[in-house]
Amino acid sequence: MQRIKLIVEYDGSNYHGFQKQLNAHTIQAEMEQAIHTISGESVGVNAAGRTDAGVHALGQVVAFNTATGIPAEKWRLALNSNLPDDIRVLDSQAVSAAFHPQFDAVQKSYRYLIYRQKTGGAFYRNYALLNDQALDIKAMQLACSLIIGKHDFRCFCASGSGVKTWERTVHICSLEDEDGWLKLNITADGFLYNMVRIIIGTLLEVGRGRFQADQITSIIASRERSKAGPTAPPQGLYLCSVEYPIGCI
Amino acid sequence: MQRIKLIVEYDGSNYHGFQKQLNAHTIQAEMEQAIHTISGESVGVNAAGRTDAGVHALGQVVAFNTATGIPAEKWRLALNSNLPDDIRVLDSQAVSAAFHPQFDAVQKSYRYLIYRQKTGGAFYRNYALLNDQALDIKAMQLACSLIIGKHDFRCFCASGSGVKTWERTVHICSLEDEDGWLKLNITADGFLYNMVRIIIGTLLEVGRGRFQADQITSIIASRERSKAGPTAPPQGLYLCSVEYPIGCI
Repeated sequence: MQRIKLIVEYDGSNYHGFQKQLNAHTIQAEMEQAIHTISGESVGVNAAGRTDAGVHALGQVVAFNTATGIPAEKWRLALNSNLPDDIRVLDSQAVSAAFHPQFDAVQKSYRYLIYRQKTGGAFYRNYALLNDQALDIKAMQLACSLIIGKHDFRCFCASGSGVKTWERTVHICSLEDEDGWLKLNITADGFLYNMVRIIIGTLLEVGRGRFQADQITSIIASRERSKAGPTAPPQGLYLCSVEYPIGCI
Repeated sequence: MQRIKLIVEYDGSNYHGFQKQLNAHTIQAEMEQAIHTISGESVGVNAAGRTDAGVHALGQVVAFNTATGIPAEKWRLALNSNLPDDIRVLDSQAVSAAFHPQFDAVQKSYRYLIYRQKTGGAFYRNYALLNDQALDIKAMQLACSLIIGKHDFRCFCASGSGVKTWERTVHICSLEDEDGWLKLNITADGFLYNMVRIIIGTLLEVGRGRFQADQITSIIASRERSKAGPTAPPQGLYLCSVEYPIGCI
């Protein structure tokens, strides 16, 4: 038995998210189908994060077991020949039998894109939040800096998630303003459900002047979801990369 | 009666081209439906160019007549509220009753995109030709320079088009190589059917070394379609802009 780790990019526009569901088009179902076509094996794949409907990935990590003798590095091409062209395997390698892409992850990075030009909306509607309002970018950048650090982030967590602790450490939270694009880069040891989308919804309230930038500190301290901004839509969100301890894989 | 000129951008991925056809999803049908929803009028719209299935537009020009009193500049917002979000009207203005977007055009500009990175294919599959072969870019750029000028371009015209003359004047034909993207910008007084896609197919043969760059001159002189390269796929092609004589609109 061999365990294979994949780095996968996908355009989430046409999927109901990563996780397999009855009667829904999902990334997981496409991947398991492709593995079955190649090897005849019915396997379950594990992923680093269950991206929601419409959310994209540049570096999702997926793992599965196979009893075939196909060399690990051949799985990339084999899968790309059998997957829809909006799901691409960028790398495949052998890992230890115990590797789990979600539980072993020590750090994840997401990006959220906001597109602010008057032209181009027809092309970016599925790949960014379209917003041409006046925004105070400097205030949004100050707010970002207040998110960095170890905090109880319950205010940025959608209700109904069954986590044990809301404490997470955000290492990077920066907002670039470049040629009509706003790009939020955020890296943490883990993320709560909808955390990045609620942070974006909150930053936009800061940009519009409805929240003061330094209010972020009291919003976090409140531990109340209702104090933060709304949940931004999924199409601007990208799972960029997932890090593991050296030696784990 | 008022004649309205629109500048329209669209993502052609989900359409069978601009021109209305029975039982096919087209840009023209969507636009005529939106106008009917707004005004109750059943009008035919004219366009500067009939883009093929999968081809995109950044600045298609469309015109139609209306007997409503809706001010010309209000049509932009009204149409955007009634069109699918992959078709966006960027501008609407009143023009003379005689204006025709195709017959009055004196110059058109297209762009063709080739994407050459190993990552990102899941996102750009509908928006560029994906090609990661080794290409001699300098040779392709030299070939581009030989296309500029007034020539009989029959070699770059798909068969079956009923034009009177194959003579066109190409003003700009340049290939930029930038961060994994190859961008062909081409401007002419008019284009033959599939001309840009056949030029790209021919330039790629130059890039691969199957044609010498200076062979372009003899290919053009041959006036034979069979001497040129294959027709490149539609998804890399964008109709960028259309120019009219001052005073015409």
